Amino acid sequence: MTHVLPGLAKPAASPEAVFDAVFRPTGVDGVYGRSGAYESVVEALAVMISRERDAMAEVVRFPPVASRALIEKAGYLKSFPHLLGCVCALGGGNQRIASAVARFEAGETWTDGLEPSDLVLTPAACYPIYPMAAARGPVPRDGLIFDVASDCFRREPSRDIDRLQSFRMREYVRIGTLEQTTTFREEWRERAAALADRLGISYRIEAASDPFFGRVGAMVGRYQVEQQLKYELVVPVRSTETPTACMSFNYHRDHFGQTFDMRGEDGAFAHTTCVAFGMDRLAVALFATHGTEIAKWPAAVRSALNL
Amino acid sequence: MTHVLPGLAKPAASPEAVFDAVFRPTGVDGVYGRSGAYESVVEALAVMISRERDAMAEVVRFPPVASRALIEKAGYLKSFPHLLGCVCALGGGNQRIASAVARFEAGETWTDGLEPSDLVLTPAACYPIYPMAAARGPVPRDGLIFDVASDCFRREPSRDIDRLQSFRMREYVRIGTLEQTTTFREEWRERAAALADRLGISYRIEAASDPFFGRVGAMVGRYQVEQQLKYELVVPVRSTETPTACMSFNYHRDHFGQTFDMRGEDGAFAHTTCVAFGMDRLAVALFATHGTEIAKWPAAVRSALNL
Repeated sequence: MTHVLPGLAKPAASPEAVFDAVFRPTGVDGVYGRSGAYESVVEALAVMISRERDAMAEVVRFPPVASRALIEKAGYLKSFPHLLGCVCALGGGNQRIASAVARFEAGETWTDGLEPSDLVLTPAACYPIYPMAAARGPVPRDGLIFDVASDCFRREPSRDIDRLQSFRMREYVRIGTLEQTTTFREEWRERAAALADRLGISYRIEAASDPFFGRVGAMVGRYQVEQQLKYELVVPVRSTETPTACMSFNYHRDHFGQTFDMRGEDGAFAHTTCVAFGMDRLAVALFATHGTEIAKWPAAVRSALNL
Repeated sequence: MTHVLPGLAKPAASPEAVFDAVFRPTGVDGVYGRSGAYESVVEALAVMISRERDAMAEVVRFPPVASRALIEKAGYLKSFPHLLGCVCALGGGNQRIASAVARFEAGETWTDGLEPSDLVLTPAACYPIYPMAAARGPVPRDGLIFDVASDCFRREPSRDIDRLQSFRMREYVRIGTLEQTTTFREEWRERAAALADRLGISYRIEAASDPFFGRVGAMVGRYQVEQQLKYELVVPVRSTETPTACMSFNYHRDHFGQTFDMRGEDGAFAHTTCVAFGMDRLAVALFATHGTEIAKWPAAVRSALNL
């Protein structure tokens, strides 16, 4: 499928200027302190997205760590093993811990005392909601909508301003029949475009794939594009040539229904879909588009964000 | 030093009732989803604390991961090795990663492929601010105040409702002379008490120690109490007998000044102090004190929180 994509406007502020305005280095690429002005934009975006929440949606917020068993079962380890961060800690009792500290103090390697825990760093905001919903019994006739959010982690150190290792993701998740989930995703493509319009950002929406691991993964990614299982709303942040995915619209078919034995009242596996907002990418996109001083952003944008 | 401590009022709601109202199990003790009502209280507390922010304070927010080298240098590994969570990831190139995934799919152990990264889970909100401040050159005559916050992690799985592995911490950090830091801490003890009064929670403020590791650590803790380096504002959450520390007032003397070579204009090492708000513990304390339905909380408390 080839079609002409609309052109994207050039960012007003350079990545370097945006970085200096919003981030504070911490010594690790992709892990930064965040300025007060930047946080006010992230909070304003959260409020704006909350106003779009469906009346039937249930709010659940997740911490930045999640059950390793859950993430393994959900298929993340198989699909994205290169991106997964695992929580490890010193174990084996006080003597072994003391010995690791002694090695550290002697300037030796101490990390060989680390043992894997039952936790990983949450890789996406929606994973923990599927087993939680499944545990409640059959999905009701009208289906379910959840409003979830989490600090997420992906192990891909980079100096690119739009590729953080630790970032915030907000999602609306729809669980129900094929028709309910398809309708939800199509509606949200429209609503997301309207949201981007109000933010005054240049964008286009295009078929996309996830960064699956390995050669087989690359095939899965091509299939994902062919079947249009994923769309992204991309915005010029670093450049117009390599725009940044700031929102995504994902259809999982009945993958999570099968994985967590989540079924409708008729016994059929539930379908799921989610619309995801990259909160940090949207905030960075606003600074890149409108400049580093919020006071000089267009009045309509500041009004939409109540800033 | 023995003195009579004021009595504490009995919590209105049981830990079990609070748990059901605010948390959603995820399969791991101390790691829970959070209800919308609970999050609205956490957000309201954040706004209330922001109103207490000094005009000269600079806002910086940190992600839930931090540089391992920084946390090692700050002394955390030596003092609290048993609580530190390290970020590990599969490494060694695509073949080794693929082999770990193959072991996982065969039902074997795959975590032996994990390698330590340069990141740990942030153990307290203020650590990253000290090297950041030190990098700016001599501490100005009036000193510095920072408003910092972070999702924090401590590896101590527990079913106690007031002991999460992943929790949110907000801090005001004062950097300056001995006198500036002492004054700040004393003033904040008063202001924190006034804040607790407005929240309608029962509390007392008492000398306290951190959970230092090992036998030597226990001595450090006793010294900390003797020297009154740490106070805590404790609130009955699970019971009146074992109240929960919801805020703390910490004086580090010139530990961080020496560690990060942070000096005043006169060349003397800077002193630092911080007041820390356990956002999740304060929110849980409110539900335990006033009951599980926000609508039924005392009008004065709801008004103070704008809820």
